[in-house]
Amino acid sequence: MAAAAVQPSGPISDLLRLPGGPVDLRAIDPHGKPGFDGKKKDGKKALPAMGEELFDLQERLYAGGYVEDGRRILLVLQGMDTSGKGGVLKHTAGLFDPNGLRIHSFKAPTDEERAHDFLWRIEKEVPPAGKVGVFDRSHYEDVLIGRVRSLAPAEEIERRYDAINDFEAGLAAEGVTILKCMLHISADKQRERLLARLDDPTKQWKFNPGDVDERALWPAYREAYEIALERCHTGVAPWYVVPSDRKWYRNWAIGSLLLETLRGMDLSWPEPDYDVDEQRQRLLDETPPG
Amino acid sequence: MAAAAVQPSGPISDLLRLPGGPVDLRAIDPHGKPGFDGKKKDGKKALPAMGEELFDLQERLYAGGYVEDGRRILLVLQGMDTSGKGGVLKHTAGLFDPNGLRIHSFKAPTDEERAHDFLWRIEKEVPPAGKVGVFDRSHYEDVLIGRVRSLAPAEEIERRYDAINDFEAGLAAEGVTILKCMLHISADKQRERLLARLDDPTKQWKFNPGDVDERALWPAYREAYEIALERCHTGVAPWYVVPSDRKWYRNWAIGSLLLETLRGMDLSWPEPDYDVDEQRQRLLDETPPG
Repeated sequence: MAAAAVQPSGPISDLLRLPGGPVDLRAIDPHGKPGFDGKKKDGKKALPAMGEELFDLQERLYAGGYVEDGRRILLVLQGMDTSGKGGVLKHTAGLFDPNGLRIHSFKAPTDEERAHDFLWRIEKEVPPAGKVGVFDRSHYEDVLIGRVRSLAPAEEIERRYDAINDFEAGLAAEGVTILKCMLHISADKQRERLLARLDDPTKQWKFNPGDVDERALWPAYREAYEIALERCHTGVAPWYVVPSDRKWYRNWAIGSLLLETLRGMDLSWPEPDYDVDEQRQRLLDETPPG
Repeated sequence: MAAAAVQPSGPISDLLRLPGGPVDLRAIDPHGKPGFDGKKKDGKKALPAMGEELFDLQERLYAGGYVEDGRRILLVLQGMDTSGKGGVLKHTAGLFDPNGLRIHSFKAPTDEERAHDFLWRIEKEVPPAGKVGVFDRSHYEDVLIGRVRSLAPAEEIERRYDAINDFEAGLAAEGVTILKCMLHISADKQRERLLARLDDPTKQWKFNPGDVDERALWPAYREAYEIALERCHTGVAPWYVVPSDRKWYRNWAIGSLLLETLRGMDLSWPEPDYDVDEQRQRLLDETPPG
């Protein structure tokens, strides 16, 4: 039987979770650092300091996947180019045991994927019990670039918000705790990061001239985000807006969200379903295999 | 166009690679530490010391996946229970950027998987270009437990060795460098580790009474490994036997194999396929989006 999904709760979750109702991204400072009092060097130390506890709790979650416990975590990362989805994977997901992680990066859909409902390729990547799954981009692309670039008829885009809510409610009922994070950056910071990519021969491969074209659509993307964040902000799958102009804050905040979530899951080690003493005796009594 | 797969070469690769011909696992010391001169504490330091170079080379490999370079790595981990496949994932794979890793643990096949050829579920998990894939167990289970437990008719087991060689040759032709590692432990060390699992409430979930039953078949498993290692040891997909009674040596040796492999790939940063100055100027000239 699947245990119910736990909703994150704690100082950072409560600060970053959207309040509900209309969303105005311009009212949220991308350079802010809600819940963190120190400076950059403190933030950079605070993230790895969580590592041991994150690792331990993740192992308990993973162990639970071996017994009848359907619980797992799905971290959804959305944000404009250069908002730092890759950086979160490297610095925050990198604190976990890779065996208990399942990361999937969604690119532009293939022809086969386009021939199916937009959730078809998403469902295949839902993390199994015990794992921490990360979506680097997600089904939200289908109401973000999908809306901005009119990649589907308007009524299909409309339909998708409810379809997403139904899908996420189904996941939550199976024991998936869903953390949806929008990495919120300013257009100025994006320009700075794109220029930095162009200036560094080890980063030029990350740059795509199309990224500059998309910048011209910044207000349309902001609006598409605001609509998605408002319509798909539910009790079982809330949205968190993570100020991401400061990389160290972004990484620390997502680490903290994960930690608060794991702490709230009351993860105990599974009880053995065999007799420990009997098994020990079997091993002690056996003829050593040659 | 896919670049050719590179064969690992270097001090550790050359020491651990099977010489070819009949394999006698009893002649290989599971407690050995070929190629490592120091003690445990030196070995435990030597692995993380590789981290920075591994990480840098992996990023170059990953960047290559964004251009027309099909190269990737597939690390296959096989070994008896407690040989440390999970430990290698945690300590060695844990040095990489999780975004460039793709780990798959193969369990007993499902009914759907059993209804297909044994390679069907394997092909779906081959890492994409640019990634470091890890198979925790693999298609070799189908000639190991498959043979020992007669899970398929004898002629089907026979057929599989050639099918595996064909499959792996095909992968190599697509640019997959295949590192097959057998984690070689002694039966005594396995008993010690199983007893340790029983003694530790945080490890009891890893124990399965069936593990003790399999121990009685130790000689049959050894023979099945020897046959697989002999028949599927090819120029493009060689086997490495990694002495694994010492955990630190096992982790260090596999880290070293990966490092030697990556070093041999001559991984340069991809050249941009756009005009860098032109793109910089576009960003500097634009009207900042509101």
